[in-house]
Order: sequence, then structure tokens, then C-alpha cells
Amino acid sequence: MKGNCVVAQSGGPTAVINASACGVIQEALRSPGITGVYAAHNGILGLMREELFDLGEEAPSVIEGLRTTPAAALGSCRYKVKTEEDYRTILEVFRKHDIRYFFYIGGNDSMDTADKVNKLALKEGYEFRAMGVPKTIDNDLAHTDHCPGYGSVIKYMATMVMEAGRDTEALYTADTVNVIEAMGRNAGWIAAGTALAKRSEEDAPHIILLPEVPFDPERFKARVRHYLDTIERCVIVVSEGTKNPDGGYIAEQTGDFAKDAFGHTQLGGAASYIKAFVEAELKVKARFAIPSTIQRTGIHFASQTDSDEAYLTGQTAVRLAVAGESGKMVTLVREPGAAYACGTGLADLSAVANGEKPFPEAWIGADGYSVTEDFIDYARPLIMGEVEPEMEGGLPRFMRFERHYVKRGPTL
Amino acid sequence: MKGNCVVAQSGGPTAVINASACGVIQEALRSPGITGVYAAHNGILGLMREELFDLGEEAPSVIEGLRTTPAAALGSCRYKVKTEEDYRTILEVFRKHDIRYFFYIGGNDSMDTADKVNKLALKEGYEFRAMGVPKTIDNDLAHTDHCPGYGSVIKYMATMVMEAGRDTEALYTADTVNVIEAMGRNAGWIAAGTALAKRSEEDAPHIILLPEVPFDPERFKARVRHYLDTIERCVIVVSEGTKNPDGGYIAEQTGDFAKDAFGHTQLGGAASYIKAFVEAELKVKARFAIPSTIQRTGIHFASQTDSDEAYLTGQTAVRLAVAGESGKMVTLVREPGAAYACGTGLADLSAVANGEKPFPEAWIGADGYSVTEDFIDYARPLIMGEVEPEMEGGLPRFMRFERHYVKRGPTL
Repeated sequence: MKGNCVVAQSGGPTAVINASACGVIQEALRSPGITGVYAAHNGILGLMREELFDLGEEAPSVIEGLRTTPAAALGSCRYKVKTEEDYRTILEVFRKHDIRYFFYIGGNDSMDTADKVNKLALKEGYEFRAMGVPKTIDNDLAHTDHCPGYGSVIKYMATMVMEAGRDTEALYTADTVNVIEAMGRNAGWIAAGTALAKRSEEDAPHIILLPEVPFDPERFKARVRHYLDTIERCVIVVSEGTKNPDGGYIAEQTGDFAKDAFGHTQLGGAASYIKAFVEAELKVKARFAIPSTIQRTGIHFASQTDSDEAYLTGQTAVRLAVAGESGKMVTLVREPGAAYACGTGLADLSAVANGEKPFPEAWIGADGYSVTEDFIDYARPLIMGEVEPEMEGGLPRFMRFERHYVKRGPTL
Repeated sequence: MKGNCVVAQSGGPTAVINASACGVIQEALRSPGITGVYAAHNGILGLMREELFDLGEEAPSVIEGLRTTPAAALGSCRYKVKTEEDYRTILEVFRKHDIRYFFYIGGNDSMDTADKVNKLALKEGYEFRAMGVPKTIDNDLAHTDHCPGYGSVIKYMATMVMEAGRDTEALYTADTVNVIEAMGRNAGWIAAGTALAKRSEEDAPHIILLPEVPFDPERFKARVRHYLDTIERCVIVVSEGTKNPDGGYIAEQTGDFAKDAFGHTQLGGAASYIKAFVEAELKVKARFAIPSTIQRTGIHFASQTDSDEAYLTGQTAVRLAVAGESGKMVTLVREPGAAYACGTGLADLSAVANGEKPFPEAWIGADGYSVTEDFIDYARPLIMGEVEPEMEGGLPRFMRFERHYVKRGPTL
């Protein structure tokens, strides 16, 4: 099947989503079956608005530089496709531009979108192939061993926690407790990953608060006191999704922008809540840090393993689509054996869209404030190696597309 | 003059204060005039408590590894020496342990302490030499071109702002404004340094709020709107010390721990204030990040130039003390000429203690939200090169002393 392809990115940016895009673009450009290689600006929004730009007109060095450019160079969005009409609009754009291949890099909402467009195309008899490329720092996609983006966020967060740990160790006579907030609305994957920083009992993090373990003020207080009594300091990683026993978040935001486009509650403030709690209840000075979105785009200390796997998933999606595959997401499959090796597999888009991978209960430490060695064995290989961005004037150099827009069809 | 020396660290940790300690320790260990090389655990507190450990018993590889270990490996404190009695206690410890050289790495409070101990020793006829080694991320010490610690904090913060800028650029259809809080209680040096991230009009930071420029809600609103109208997004760096026209901080903390040991107001919350302001006044969604102490200990992306200069100041303090110098702080002196070169000079401890270096008004941009090219020319050379920490299991490896304590004298 000959035709054009479109690649799009969706949802929260990561350090390596552009490495996936690079894999898609470079493979598509060298595939004889694919004629034009287009990007939809800002994901599905750009697709619906017919904002397509031609990646064949971008400099190869810019495309290669995506491997060390964070966030989402094609532009992203949080738009949730809701109506049959929206899907028809998208299919119409595909028809007008002879787009026969769709590569969507994102999380489960994106896999749902790709799945539904694909099914509509099938129903309408439009010859078309849709492939999903996994992306999320949250590591909660089903049917894949792990998700591109996760290795980099935990490498960077663990490093921040190590450094903050040494800060608190140096200055415990003044700032005794330090609280660092990790992203993760529903699952503790990111907070758990900071445990990689701990090589000895003295090392941070001393306490990890996971969304999976209801916050128990008295037990928590006793645990902090234990560290104050033994090492005179305590570094706490709190997941933004940490909940009270009644299921409510410990620090829920209110106001006009309290919910995002999908109706998810916007969090933030878990760290300041814990800081205030510690100061009030334990009478020691505490500080807090909220790295927020900074944690997810830290390409300056991202995992090379993660970046390579992100590229691989993108590249594989194109290879398999050209070979006839459709309606699938490329997954990462850990090979058996002591040495880490990772290949790819496939999962139905609909299975990924409707699934989720909770943080395994068996990997939560007996005290509820730590993780097990099995988790460490799972996570360690994902953070190996460092991405080295190009440097210019002492700072990284990132790429930006020129965006030569493809001529629009007659108004839809 | 033969005798023992003691080295101590004080105040807020930095990425390179241990590089300064490394310079002091390695030079002291090879100086024939210096017999024992001791550290005071937790700065002046350890000195008063006679908690001295012998650096000669530490592994040379650990001492060398200080160059890539952040925070303050000797331990730090925020204790303000207040009474004549405190100074007499310190001098008593010096006498008991035949300490003839004192190297104090810190900011202006530390220079004041070193100066007063030195003057008391002189008065009492105790042969003694005290030398200061500059350290502060705030870059506000007088009589030095810049301060070790500053280059690293702005390199890291500028990188975070670049990455957050790409995050906002990718997702502006959902998260339109991003606010990042920079340290800096009184001066805008750190916030200003993030301007290094900006290579084009599109690049973050779009607005910098400096403590030197009173916050004007209407002008600020218009400036944000300008970016929303032109590039549909806005990344704002707000200094924690940003003030209202009446001189009060825009986000002052209250409660039990609102002031530190020196009576300085503890800040934090400037970013959440600006985020809430933008959402209420401009009706767009904003996010915020508070890197807090994380920004000051980011050795994983610190400036090699800064690290080298930190080492140089420590090493020079020892060389000059052995040669007879006392009562001085080693300064950094930028050599004239187009290519950056930096040597050392000396300033009286008392002059540094009582001085401060405000952010020059001439370097604030005409709009009040930016900095001039002259500032960029000043700051750029300070961030060149990257420190590369040793790695182990995908994360940096930091050093920790064994701390063999020197036998205490009879109770003081």
C-alpha cells in the first residue's frame, strides 16, 4: 500500500517522546511505500484542523537532533476526541491528503483515539493502517513491560533526591526535613523510582509516600521521628496522588482550573501539605520542592536506555505498518535472563486503551514507605546511560521545526 | 609557622562548595608548614563543640571525589556566633589543638565570624591565620567578580527553564503559562541568570520578575497578554524575593518557622502566587514549579568553570596563608580582554562581611522583565563546561567522610 503518513504526539511531554518521533520519521522517510511524511501540529487537534507540515522539508540534522530535544517537537495536546463527527473529520483529512498510515505517540487516551479512527476507516472501506507508539512518564500502560519516558523521569528524579539528600545531610542543624513532590496521579511508579537513589540506610529517600498506601498521620509521624532520632534528618518523597484513608487526595486543588480537559483533578501541593504537617507535628523546620513539569523533560540527564527504546518503538511501528500491521501498539518486551535485554511486541490498541498497569502491591515494602528489591531489579536497567545533548554557550541546544504546512484541501 | 589547620563550611550548600574544600584539603595536606588537617563538623557549630575530624585519615580518592559531590561534605550550619564568649570558646579549641590556620568557606556571615576570631587571636597574642573562601549561589559578595556556586546554579536553572520552555511550547493548548521560582532573597542574580536560556524571542524565559523591580500587576498582566497574543504561551521566572511596591514580599510565609536563625524571612510561594494571579486575571491555565534547594546542589549538570574556580579559591587560600597572609578572603578577578580568564585577588574579611553586591540596575532591561546583553556577557563564561560525576548503577556516586574524630581536650 502506497500513500502518505502522518505522525502526531499527544499528552504530557517527556524527555524522549521526540526520540520516538525521530524513529518514526527516519524510518518513514526511507520506506519506499510511504510517499509524504507529515506531522500533525499539536496532535489530534492539528489533524482535525488540517494543520499538517511536511517533515520531508525539514533538515535531516534537525530530525536527528530530536533524539536530544525534550518535550514534543511536533506539538502536543490534551484534546479528547468525543464525537463520531470528530472522527469523521479526521478521516476526511486522511482522505484529502491520501494519508494511509497514522502513527500516534501517546498514552491510553491516544491509543483509544487511534483505535477508533482505525475502526471507522475499516468500516468505511478506506485502506489505512494505524499504529500506536507508547509514551508516558507514568509507566501505567498495560501490555508493555515499561513505557518510554519512565526511565528518564526516574533517573532524573532519583538524582534530584540524591542531591537534595546531601543538601539535607549537610544542613540538618537548620533544615531538618526536606519534602520532594513526585508526579503520579494514580500510581506510585515515579515516587517509587526515587528509591534507586538509596544505597545505604543513611541515603535519601528515607520515606516514600505512595498513592497506593493511604496516608496515616500517626504512623507517618512515628516514622519521621525514627529518622530524626537516628540520623537527625529525613528526606521524604511524596507522590502528588497520595490519598487520605477516605480516598481524597491529601492536597486537592480548588478553583477554576482544578480539573483538566479530561476531568482529571489537577494536583500540586502535596509537598507543602507534608511540610506544614511535619513542622506543626514534629516541631522541626522543613523545606519542600515541587519539580512539577521540570521532572518530565530533563533531557540534560535522561536515560540513554530509555531514549534508545523510545526510538526503537517508533521505528518498529513504521516497519510493521509497512509490512501490513494495523490497530496495534508497539510494546516493550523484557527478555528473560540476568542481563537486561529488551525487544518489542504488539498489543491491540483497544486493549491498551482500556487497560492500566497499577504499581504492584508486591513491590511495596512491608513498612509501606519503601519498595522491594524486586522493584529495584525491575527499574535499575531502565536508567542506565546518559543522553548527551549538543551544547552551545554552556547550555543544551534543542531543535525546532520550520513547519512548512501542507496545502489545505477545500474547506471541510 | 607550623601547626594544625581546620577547614569548615557554612550556610546553604552549593554544587561546588566541596570543590573548594578539596582545594583547601589537598593543598594543606601537601604543605610542610601544616601538620594536621582537620575539619570542623557542621561549621562553626562543630568548632564550638570541639567536633573535629582528621582529614589525613580519609582516603585520597574520597577527597578527590569531593570535586563531584554536591552540598557540604564537612557538614554546614546556619549558627550565628553572637557573643564574645562564643569567640573565646572557639579560640580555646584552637589553642587546645594547636590550630594555627583556619579556612572558612562561606558567605558574608562566615567572613564576619572568621574576621572576629582572627582579631581576637591577634589581641590575645595567639599566632594564627584566618582565610576566607567565597561561597554563595546568591552571587552577592562584595569585592569579587563573582562567587563560586553561582555559575552552577544559573547553568542548571537556565537548563530547567529551557526544558520547561519546550514543555510549555509543546502543550500550550492545555497548559498555557508556566511559572518557575528562582532562589534569591534580596537580589535577582539567579533569576537573571535564567536569561541565558533565551536564544530567540520565542524562547523561555519570556518574563523575569526580579526583586529589584516592584511588582506592578497591571503592567505584568499586559506583558503576559502580549506573549499570549503573539506566541500563545508564556514562561515566567519569578524570584522568591519579588516584592510589592510597598516593599513586602509578594508571597510571605507565616507560621512558626517563618524566620531562619538570622531572622531572615523564609520565602517560598512566589510561584504559586503568580500562577493563581495569572489564572484569575487572564483566564488561562498556569502551572508552577518550585525547584527550591534542588537548584543549588545540581552537580549532575554543574559548571566545570565554576568547579575549577571553586577549587582554585580554596587552594589559593592555603598557599597564601602558608606564605603569611591572614584576615583576607580570596576573591575572583576577571582579567581584561575578550577571552574569559579569571585569576585571584584578596579582600579584607571585614570589607566582605559588611559589603554586598546588588544586581546592577544598569543590567536590568528597559521593560523591567529582562536583562541586558552586558549581563549576558558577564554571566556566559561562568557556565561553560559540564562537571561529570562518577556514575554507578545509572546514578551519580557521591563521597562521604568516615569522620575519625580528633581526641577531645579536657572539657572546656
